[in-house]
Amino acid sequence: MQLKELGEKPLIDILGKKFSKADPRVLKGIGDDCAAVLPARGKALLSSTDTLTEEVHFSLTYSPPKLLGRKLVNISVSDIAAMGGTPLFILLALTMPATIGEDFVSELYRGVEEACGENATILIGGNLSSTAGESPIVLTSVVLGEVSESEMICRTGAAPGESIYITGSPGEAALGLIGLQSDGPSAITRSPYRNSVARHLDPKPRTKIARTIARKGLATSMMDTSDGLASDLAALAKASNIGAMVKTTLIPISPEMKTYLKDNSLGLDVPLCGGEDYELLFTAREENKEDIERLAGQSGIPITRIGTTEPRDESSKTGNVRFIQNDGKELELKNKGFDHYK
Amino acid sequence: MQLKELGEKPLIDILGKKFSKADPRVLKGIGDDCAAVLPARGKALLSSTDTLTEEVHFSLTYSPPKLLGRKLVNISVSDIAAMGGTPLFILLALTMPATIGEDFVSELYRGVEEACGENATILIGGNLSSTAGESPIVLTSVVLGEVSESEMICRTGAAPGESIYITGSPGEAALGLIGLQSDGPSAITRSPYRNSVARHLDPKPRTKIARTIARKGLATSMMDTSDGLASDLAALAKASNIGAMVKTTLIPISPEMKTYLKDNSLGLDVPLCGGEDYELLFTAREENKEDIERLAGQSGIPITRIGTTEPRDESSKTGNVRFIQNDGKELELKNKGFDHYK
Repeated sequence: MQLKELGEKPLIDILGKKFSKADPRVLKGIGDDCAAVLPARGKALLSSTDTLTEEVHFSLTYSPPKLLGRKLVNISVSDIAAMGGTPLFILLALTMPATIGEDFVSELYRGVEEACGENATILIGGNLSSTAGESPIVLTSVVLGEVSESEMICRTGAAPGESIYITGSPGEAALGLIGLQSDGPSAITRSPYRNSVARHLDPKPRTKIARTIARKGLATSMMDTSDGLASDLAALAKASNIGAMVKTTLIPISPEMKTYLKDNSLGLDVPLCGGEDYELLFTAREENKEDIERLAGQSGIPITRIGTTEPRDESSKTGNVRFIQNDGKELELKNKGFDHYK
Repeated sequence: MQLKELGEKPLIDILGKKFSKADPRVLKGIGDDCAAVLPARGKALLSSTDTLTEEVHFSLTYSPPKLLGRKLVNISVSDIAAMGGTPLFILLALTMPATIGEDFVSELYRGVEEACGENATILIGGNLSSTAGESPIVLTSVVLGEVSESEMICRTGAAPGESIYITGSPGEAALGLIGLQSDGPSAITRSPYRNSVARHLDPKPRTKIARTIARKGLATSMMDTSDGLASDLAALAKASNIGAMVKTTLIPISPEMKTYLKDNSLGLDVPLCGGEDYELLFTAREENKEDIERLAGQSGIPITRIGTTEPRDESSKTGNVRFIQNDGKELELKNKGFDHYK
């Protein structure tokens, strides 16, 4: 059955029932003009929105709709994590052709439901609208969350002389995309890069470890990596009005990335410029080094110190982020990360 | 200049500067992973999202981009009004081809800025993403607002035996669209339906009058009319588990609609089924009749009693909403309002 046979309002009814959840903080969920929730006393309200567009962020030829639903929720939740907050509520604005199959929609929402459950978030509202038959699907998620003002971590808090840390190994999602683009959906199970494929299709927001970093006050600035490490670090440095020096030998390279780099005799463009990792990038003072190492051990999530912050150097030809190689020379990247309009 | 020459990040920088506004409730606006605001103590947080899709909701052949920006904000604000709330913050998720002109974008944001100013709302964040060159523009707005729990008006509160009221004259936006589709942009100044054209291109949310209705407790249920009066009233009746009887002779018909109906010898399909009015539809008890009439006089916004609520009649062939004509017979509508997937 296609959406045009089901209709918008019956679909909203189905979603209203599927996602209705007794929760003392939700006064009104799906089905009214607005959702109404009770914010926690004394906390800051966090909000963010993200969009996944067909043929830009995903392709129906290789993105299973359930994973798309999971990713739609998880990439927004990742923004809350990046501020040190707790995600609470989700709204989804979906623009789809009326010819799309009901099975696509139900799988998508199955993924949404799963991810909402894993993140302890509740889908409270959204919007459904149509688009012409051949137009791309555009999926927008909105997340609301909260954080104590004293625990909130922004991009603006870094100072020179601090350490730069990342979770995970950068570029894995981009490597996964390379696998999917070369082998199609079979890459999910058979690609030499299948762990990376999983990172592209089903990223996991680092909410728990980010909350610990925030609660313990371990970071001076933080963001999630969605546009590629080089580009994201430049954004963080710019927001904090500092410079950043990364030692390329310190950058963690996943086993699959090692294989890829060896087979393709490429430089570090994929790990440094590949987007959609949704890992954490943060800065911390020397005094927090041991706590951060302990946190990595306890959580099982690798946290790696990759460099240090510096005073901003306006004369730098590469902006204010330098990648220094083993020989002491600066690495020149061909690509500076994803820009939607470039 | 096209967006692809400007780039996503420079555009975000421009927007961050344009919309940065010192406000004690905004801790973080545009430029971080999330926006962070301080919710008011003891109030419910309202949230809603709406999408305007090219060739479904608007056409670049006749929609001036500034008015599109205004509409994008105003239709979300209208959802807050419909709950009796106060709009506060806006986020925008825009999906546009990289080939779009910078002038389109700057005009769009000029409209956003105007509407934010008129509604005393602040743009605090959003997302920019690209889409293929020929794909439709998809514009999503998110609004956050607040209301005292005791003043919140939902769709679910109506009971049988109450009066049904609407603000304005229904179907004006749909008539405006008919004018635009027949005469193109010249309809804005020269169409016989130019007031209706203005209603389509530049709807005004009924925030102020809705706040008064909420503060004074005048309505038992309320919503805004976006899918057409017949469809919206059916949704309200369903949510409240009641029926509704509307006398067609009571429906306010604007002078332009009168001309249109006479020239086209049509029934009431345009006024009853035309969408995008963003007027208020509400129910009220007899005891509030005089206060409502006084409010209409004071505000200058027409409020008309068009019928009464009834017990739900499951056997009704027209769902649970009846439009009764002067001769006592039930009106059969060809069209029951807009469904995105039908």
